[in-house]
Amino acid sequence: MQKIIDPFILFGLIIGISSIVVGNIVEGGTTAHILQLAAALIVFGGTFGATVVSFPIKDLINALKSLKIAFFESTKSNRLLIEEIINLLVIARKRGIMALENEIPSISDPLLAKGVQLIVDGYEINVIKEAIYREIKNYEESIKNASKVFDAAGGFAPTIGIIGAVLGLIHVLQNVTEPSKVGQGIAVAFVATIYGVGSANLIFIPIAKRILQKSKNEIKRKLLIMEGINGIEKGINPHYLRVILESFKNGDKI
Amino acid sequence: MQKIIDPFILFGLIIGISSIVVGNIVEGGTTAHILQLAAALIVFGGTFGATVVSFPIKDLINALKSLKIAFFESTKSNRLLIEEIINLLVIARKRGIMALENEIPSISDPLLAKGVQLIVDGYEINVIKEAIYREIKNYEESIKNASKVFDAAGGFAPTIGIIGAVLGLIHVLQNVTEPSKVGQGIAVAFVATIYGVGSANLIFIPIAKRILQKSKNEIKRKLLIMEGINGIEKGINPHYLRVILESFKNGDKI
Amino acid sequence: MQKIIDPFILFGLIIGISSIVVGNIVEGGTTAHILQLAAALIVFGGTFGATVVSFPIKDLINALKSLKIAFFESTKSNRLLIEEIINLLVIARKRGIMALENEIPSISDPLLAKGVQLIVDGYEINVIKEAIYREIKNYEESIKNASKVFDAAGGFAPTIGIIGAVLGLIHVLQNVTEPSKVGQGIAVAFVATIYGVGSANLIFIPIAKRILQKSKNEIKRKLLIMEGINGIEKGINPHYLRVILESFKNGDKI
Amino acid sequence: MQKIIDPFILFGLIIGISSIVVGNIVEGGTTAHILQLAAALIVFGGTFGATVVSFPIKDLINALKSLKIAFFESTKSNRLLIEEIINLLVIARKRGIMALENEIPSISDPLLAKGVQLIVDGYEINVIKEAIYREIKNYEESIKNASKVFDAAGGFAPTIGIIGAVLGLIHVLQNVTEPSKVGQGIAVAFVATIYGVGSANLIFIPIAKRILQKSKNEIKRKLLIMEGINGIEKGINPHYLRVILESFKNGDKI
Amino acid sequence: MQKIIDPFILFGLIIGISSIVVGNIVEGGTTAHILQLAAALIVFGGTFGATVVSFPIKDLINALKSLKIAFFESTKSNRLLIEEIINLLVIARKRGIMALENEIPSISDPLLAKGVQLIVDGYEINVIKEAIYREIKNYEESIKNASKVFDAAGGFAPTIGIIGAVLGLIHVLQNVTEPSKVGQGIAVAFVATIYGVGSANLIFIPIAKRILQKSKNEIKRKLLIMEGINGIEKGINPHYLRVILESFKNGDKI
Repeated sequence: MQKIIDPFILFGLIIGISSIVVGNIVEGGTTAHILQLAAALIVFGGTFGATVVSFPIKDLINALKSLKIAFFESTKSNRLLIEEIINLLVIARKRGIMALENEIPSISDPLLAKGVQLIVDGYEINVIKEAIYREIKNYEESIKNASKVFDAAGGFAPTIGIIGAVLGLIHVLQNVTEPSKVGQGIAVAFVATIYGVGSANLIFIPIAKRILQKSKNEIKRKLLIMEGINGIEKGINPHYLRVILESFKNGDKI
Repeated sequence: MQKIIDPFILFGLIIGISSIVVGNIVEGGTTAHILQLAAALIVFGGTFGATVVSFPIKDLINALKSLKIAFFESTKSNRLLIEEIINLLVIARKRGIMALENEIPSISDPLLAKGVQLIVDGYEINVIKEAIYREIKNYEESIKNASKVFDAAGGFAPTIGIIGAVLGLIHVLQNVTEPSKVGQGIAVAFVATIYGVGSANLIFIPIAKRILQKSKNEIKRKLLIMEGINGIEKGINPHYLRVILESFKNGDKI
Repeated sequence: MQKIIDPFILFGLIIGISSIVVGNIVEGGTTAHILQLAAALIVFGGTFGATVVSFPIKDLINALKSLKIAFFESTKSNRLLIEEIINLLVIARKRGIMALENEIPSISDPLLAKGVQLIVDGYEINVIKEAIYREIKNYEESIKNASKVFDAAGGFAPTIGIIGAVLGLIHVLQNVTEPSKVGQGIAVAFVATIYGVGSANLIFIPIAKRILQKSKNEIKRKLLIMEGINGIEKGINPHYLRVILESFKNGDKI
Repeated sequence: MQKIIDPFILFGLIIGISSIVVGNIVEGGTTAHILQLAAALIVFGGTFGATVVSFPIKDLINALKSLKIAFFESTKSNRLLIEEIINLLVIARKRGIMALENEIPSISDPLLAKGVQLIVDGYEINVIKEAIYREIKNYEESIKNASKVFDAAGGFAPTIGIIGAVLGLIHVLQNVTEPSKVGQGIAVAFVATIYGVGSANLIFIPIAKRILQKSKNEIKRKLLIMEGINGIEKGINPHYLRVILESFKNGDKI
Repeated sequence: MQKIIDPFILFGLIIGISSIVVGNIVEGGTTAHILQLAAALIVFGGTFGATVVSFPIKDLINALKSLKIAFFESTKSNRLLIEEIINLLVIARKRGIMALENEIPSISDPLLAKGVQLIVDGYEINVIKEAIYREIKNYEESIKNASKVFDAAGGFAPTIGIIGAVLGLIHVLQNVTEPSKVGQGIAVAFVATIYGVGSANLIFIPIAKRILQKSKNEIKRKLLIMEGINGIEKGINPHYLRVILESFKNGDKI
């Protein structure tokens, strides 16, 4: 399961953040204007706290782990997987179910290996399919929860940015009698808004979406494996099985 | 059913709230600036009233009770539960269904005990499954309603915060001819916004999410019990049942 | 079907509205500041108009009628209903289906009476269940539509409040050369915001939620009756039927 | 299929719009203040353009046609329809399916006529039901799309109103050195907000909701017809069919 | 599969954008006021970056390809397709399944050709239907993802517009002591809001909606083909098949 880094997420993050920074400079601002400790503390501390309260620790850890789905590209090939499944089916039809036992160590995918093990162990196909299907559903739910963590952070950040902005405005208005401080103070207050809206829209929400979208292929791959295990156990015609398995990747062109 | 306090919710609440307070001090404000009786009365009184109108009293009581789901960690182990169910199945297969009657008092989970009691009483498995399933659905709906109560409070608080802010601004503008009062007054008015947005995003909405997320494990546990009761009644192969029950906890790793 | 007034909705409405009024006084405002004819006309007239356009007259009338669900507490007992159904089942098993005819006038619930009448008339159980189920669905849809009416009003009120505020600001800015009028005028303009946000969040949206939540028990009760009618027609074991019917109210404790 | 105009939508539109106009006059404004060409051009032109891009031309035409659902009241009676169906069933049972052929020209509803024609033509009931059901689904989807058109316009109008307001503010600020123009200019800018929020909340969104709500009865009527055609083809007991068909209109009282 | 350009999307885009430009001129502004490099860099660069992070590269490419669905009109006729399917069915009934082989090269639709090929190859109808159905689902999901890309861009643009506006305001307030610069600076800041709200509401969101709406006909066409392949394989009565296939296009009139 080697992984290579996904260049497009890096490209997207760099384009997004540098557009803001460069745009600000073009407009005549300086980067120093948008670096401010108090605003960062309020927005990121508050968002972190709200997110920790919102999810059990297991979901938070899963969310961190799911970053590898966002940042890395799977090198798994569905084409090779279909060949592997068809090959297992042919072995089972020629030499019997038991002959699959020797193949298990060399199976590339752990879910496929598990399914073949259950076939060899003589479990009923309905028991096997139920167990595999529930594992896929558990995986899907874990990914959805991981995505929800970043989505929640993306929902909290802008509203907590408003808290930072309003606190800044209160501070400014306490000193309203010194006009020279007002403009400066409001500027500082607005930085919290930028931190909140920016972190949500350039980082948290996009990552939540990316995790969900990229996991869809993995889930489709697992469903393909379940269909393959079903075909192997039933010893169906390999041509039939190939038509079914290949339909998992056809038709997605526009 | 001993419970231990869940340290992460306390950690999250402290980090979230103290980030706001410390950020405000770093910015040069004082905590006194953000304590104000009228704003608290409007925001928390209004939110409380709107929430009480929104739900029947039974749901409000359930919501308070559900805080123990948010604040405590269950010590229940699914691994031990599976052993217990397999053990009951083995007894039923060796010594007959009636032998389960003696085991009921020592069963650790009330739903499992109830299901075994119904088996011993000779009810049809479909009647038992229907009754257990409906109890699980009722539990799930109660949790969802409890979560909705905090979610509703989290929806009302910021908008009622706007009422507080606007009332403050009206008051300020009545006295607009005294410029020294304006800044001070607007500051006071903004505190209502902070109370509304802050209580919603640091407390109400995160707790609503946490209750829902943490209940998912409990519901999965109850569904596992239903599957186990089904297996016991039918006297299926214990190895088969173990594969099915263990699939409830597999596959959730990312 | 006697009804007693539900004290909690009155409690909630009083707490919500008086928090705003008292909070305003604590802040130094007067109630007179927040009473204004033009704002009331715009917000409540506009919201009323938009709501009338949004729904057929039948739905609007149903919405008004559904207020009795929000404001009154049902005295119906599910425990007594289960006894009544079990009793009818026992009569049918002892003395035959036809013996139920004499019982119909004394049946407490009209839906149960209707179902028993259909049994006595000799209709097939599938016809009876389909007819009863469709009536329940119709009831559920009527309640949902009634709730949607208040929800729509709660959606229109704050945005029409914005129209009122903007109209006020335009008026103010026409007279911007007279500074003394500006503060006063803006204050008046803001009252429309308070009317819009307040009526939506303290009255319309909470009532929409309450109607929906309280109807859930009524729908569960009707489904229980359908299950009971099914049991009576089939003459199933009364113990079985009791287990099934009681599962409708178990499991909702947290 | 005579139609009479539905007085309540006219009533709602008049109440909604005149509340805004009269409220503005009570507040001391004049109607001339809220009539402005540039704002109208931006808001209504922009909303129209965005809506035309959002939907295929067929959906836009359907949306215009669906206004007759919003503005007219159907005079169709479900009671008469049930009598007509029962009558057709009685004829088919007494004189055979073929006797229905003579009745087709006098059938009041085209969908019912079509179904009876298919029965007479000897199609299998499953083919007939599938064809009728798909027609009902197509109708339902067309209505939903028509409602979505107005809903989309109601979503675009307020945000394009913001564009109008911001363009106005830019224009004002270009001339900020002439204070007398500022107030006037801002007022003009705000008119775009009123056009956007007002047209969305008083016209577009309410009409989208009304179309959807009013079509529900038509869809229920078509489902009733499908059930009736099924009953006629199968020649079921007319009393049974009446119980089933009448359940389509029972139970919707609160 | 010739395509002709769809004139209505061009009409909509031109009307929408020119309404804003002309409205601005009518109000007394100039187009130069709303052209600004820094705002464009922040809004479009930030939106592009956030969108690239949100989706795997395959979805982004699909989104660009799906623009041809939005901008071109299909010339495919469902009426001709039904004739073609009926014709294939008649050949299969008269001369046997194998006679279809010679027809495949002249079949107008690739999905229909594929299905007929699978029939000729002797696959079971359930295998064929499963494979075809999964291809249709894959196509539907690809379109939904493409639509989501534009929808996400339409969600990011206005919020990133806020970042641009706030950065502009900070810059202005740094120079608040030079009143002549204030108005000009705020005006520049507001342009970012117009770019964000305008690009979202006049381009991104409408295109997302249009792609989804226009794909519905294509999906319905593919389902019609699946039904046709089923009919051909089973050799059902051509009159029956015609009734079923024609129901896919009936009933969508309002």
